[in-house]
Amino acid sequence: MKIEPRTLPGFMELLPNEQIKFNSMMDKIRKSYEKFGFLPLDTPIIEMADVLLAKAGGETEKQIYRFNKGDNDLALRFDLTVPLAKYVTEYYNELSFPFKRYQIGKVYRGERPQKGRFREFYQCDIDIIGDGELSIVNDAQMPSVIYITIKELGFDNFTIRINNRKILNGLFKELQLEDNSVEIMRIIDKLEKIGKENVTKCLQDLNIENDKIDKIMSFIEIEGSTDERLEALRKLNIENELFIQGLEELSQVVKHVRLFGVPDSNFNVDLTIARGLDYYTGTVYETFLNDYRELGSICSGGRYDNLAEFYTDRKLPGVGVSIGLTRVFSKLSELNIIKEENKSISKVLIVSMTESNDRALEIGTKLRDAGINADTYLEDKKIKAKFKYADKLEIPYVAIIGEEEEKNGTLSLKNMITGEQKEISLNEAIEVLKK
Amino acid sequence: MKIEPRTLPGFMELLPNEQIKFNSMMDKIRKSYEKFGFLPLDTPIIEMADVLLAKAGGETEKQIYRFNKGDNDLALRFDLTVPLAKYVTEYYNELSFPFKRYQIGKVYRGERPQKGRFREFYQCDIDIIGDGELSIVNDAQMPSVIYITIKELGFDNFTIRINNRKILNGLFKELQLEDNSVEIMRIIDKLEKIGKENVTKCLQDLNIENDKIDKIMSFIEIEGSTDERLEALRKLNIENELFIQGLEELSQVVKHVRLFGVPDSNFNVDLTIARGLDYYTGTVYETFLNDYRELGSICSGGRYDNLAEFYTDRKLPGVGVSIGLTRVFSKLSELNIIKEENKSISKVLIVSMTESNDRALEIGTKLRDAGINADTYLEDKKIKAKFKYADKLEIPYVAIIGEEEEKNGTLSLKNMITGEQKEISLNEAIEVLKK
Repeated sequence: MKIEPRTLPGFMELLPNEQIKFNSMMDKIRKSYEKFGFLPLDTPIIEMADVLLAKAGGETEKQIYRFNKGDNDLALRFDLTVPLAKYVTEYYNELSFPFKRYQIGKVYRGERPQKGRFREFYQCDIDIIGDGELSIVNDAQMPSVIYITIKELGFDNFTIRINNRKILNGLFKELQLEDNSVEIMRIIDKLEKIGKENVTKCLQDLNIENDKIDKIMSFIEIEGSTDERLEALRKLNIENELFIQGLEELSQVVKHVRLFGVPDSNFNVDLTIARGLDYYTGTVYETFLNDYRELGSICSGGRYDNLAEFYTDRKLPGVGVSIGLTRVFSKLSELNIIKEENKSISKVLIVSMTESNDRALEIGTKLRDAGINADTYLEDKKIKAKFKYADKLEIPYVAIIGEEEEKNGTLSLKNMITGEQKEISLNEAIEVLKK
Repeated sequence: MKIEPRTLPGFMELLPNEQIKFNSMMDKIRKSYEKFGFLPLDTPIIEMADVLLAKAGGETEKQIYRFNKGDNDLALRFDLTVPLAKYVTEYYNELSFPFKRYQIGKVYRGERPQKGRFREFYQCDIDIIGDGELSIVNDAQMPSVIYITIKELGFDNFTIRINNRKILNGLFKELQLEDNSVEIMRIIDKLEKIGKENVTKCLQDLNIENDKIDKIMSFIEIEGSTDERLEALRKLNIENELFIQGLEELSQVVKHVRLFGVPDSNFNVDLTIARGLDYYTGTVYETFLNDYRELGSICSGGRYDNLAEFYTDRKLPGVGVSIGLTRVFSKLSELNIIKEENKSISKVLIVSMTESNDRALEIGTKLRDAGINADTYLEDKKIKAKFKYADKLEIPYVAIIGEEEEKNGTLSLKNMITGEQKEISLNEAIEVLKK
């Protein structure tokens, strides 16, 4: 009896040529994060359930993978933020603050499987955690990292949308709607999806007076350039302290985002962004590819007052963003717009046309010593099979060693794209392959 | 009530400076594997329990993390070989053979926690899988990959020990001891640990006649250079077919290992290696750091006749090796012999001595554009705190922007190791930092 080998639904498993692209994207994200000095972290995938669920509840708790092993009540991490909170509290005395860390790793959510939803997926997170306080300039660093990262992934036409929840919350206070603020923000957050009319209707369903709804609507409809929007906000003359603070923070963020070198064409102020979660307390971000709005935000995050309140009395404010790489990759792949040039691991496949592959082995070693990824075809197959292997793996060059080449101490290098073939020396081959 | 943040025993969690070294080692392993054209793979950590356990049993089954989610009986992978078998069978039609893949990922074994044992640990595997058959030259490629990888990790004085289980099995057949072969190999495998006398005693406990024990002992005591050992084996004149085949394979492997460029000082034939497991059927490998024998083998593996017999009737022979990176890192770290020069992510920390950090932000952006990892200290702290941050993170340079530097359009670059400080232009700084 054979067991049928199968992979669980909701778990991405790629063929090698796709995996190469996936890894290339992950590497670019990692290198972009490191460029800003974020430190790597790699926390366990399994944690004590009580530690992981200290803050959770609702949907998260239902989706979690939780199980016993021996006497331990364990769970798989469902994000990288809770492990960060645990880590920062646990190793507080050994860390330097502001603590800038990145983590790229798999997280687990047992959602009902549906297209585009994954139960195991990569998150690529950066966060900056302050000890007691954290300068608003850090909030401007986030769009700068997003900008470098998304450019690195090959996209130019994207917009990082920035908002500050204090502005919305201040407005709600001014309108004496603070008790409904979370619901109102959730509704506003959907503006793009459901349209103005439906937002108005949803607000009416909350029994909000029409004049207040008008004020909310005229607020979220503020348009124009980034500076015009900030100016329009100032002109509202709202005297609520939180509103004023939020506006000041947002202005600071805009100013510093420019100093960080992010062009105005790649960011704007979008007053409708609230990032659903109650978690964020100040600046919030979303990032959209303008030609592919259907992807939704590909990089989101924000500022929070207190990272680890469930573990410690210490105040640890932070700001961070995350890329859900598995989802993004899957969607980009569907749209066939992955901008990765790396298609193969090997730059060259060495094939012997003679009975012995001694020289092929030696040449492979010399190419690798020169820093070139070189595969050697070792099986006793027809020449056609050898070229088919190079072809399927999209290896750009094949180095052929026949009797003639053995005699001359050369190799024939075939460019698999142009079909061009030349008998050259090993050193000449190294030069071509190093390009 | 606060929850105490804690990490499960047996789960490695590193501080950033250690994590940098760990990641650097992992990168080197990955790049070494890619140099030989191994393709990346990333299979799920969770699989259907029946798929994962198709072949398992005994200790493995007891150690596994297994749980239900909805109606599914799930388990965490305990190695990367079973997922490979699943993958190759599942995607057989889309793969090119020989299928060369590497996978670096975490695996899970719920062992009783003890020093040096991990429940979550990285394995770094390479395997070459043939479709029906696989040339013996692939068995010679493995030591070549090990050689490049261990050198890359900074070690020179190591020995890759090679054996072929057919030789031992042939000998057992010749001695009519094949029914005990698994037990005998387990005992022989322990030779180095328990010594000759105890091996003899263990063999006596199996009720093996003394003359046969003598033959086994004189066999595993064969000494000398690689070629002398092969010659001594030939001179035994054992006519058993399996023995002859094993000897021929081992001779072929030795010949080709040399052609792959591995010097005789880094490999030998060791007839005592059997690699405990019943799994291997031909060539077997172990790798020892000669100055740190207490580490045990840091890279092991071998040839197997059939990768996926529990899933398919197709014959898929393979050969592979694995580095248990978590264990190796932990031991090297204990011995303080990690050969990693990368201590920090950032090459430079930019600090402003004036009230505004505008220029510091601009310089950071320009340095990053030039390909340099540059962190900017953004908090409003005393200069001492800023330098302490650089110091603790072992950032090698600090770029200071004071009033003088602002006026001159320069920066003062301080080498944190020598203490030397110079006021230079941005371009000069880029040149220094790029080194």
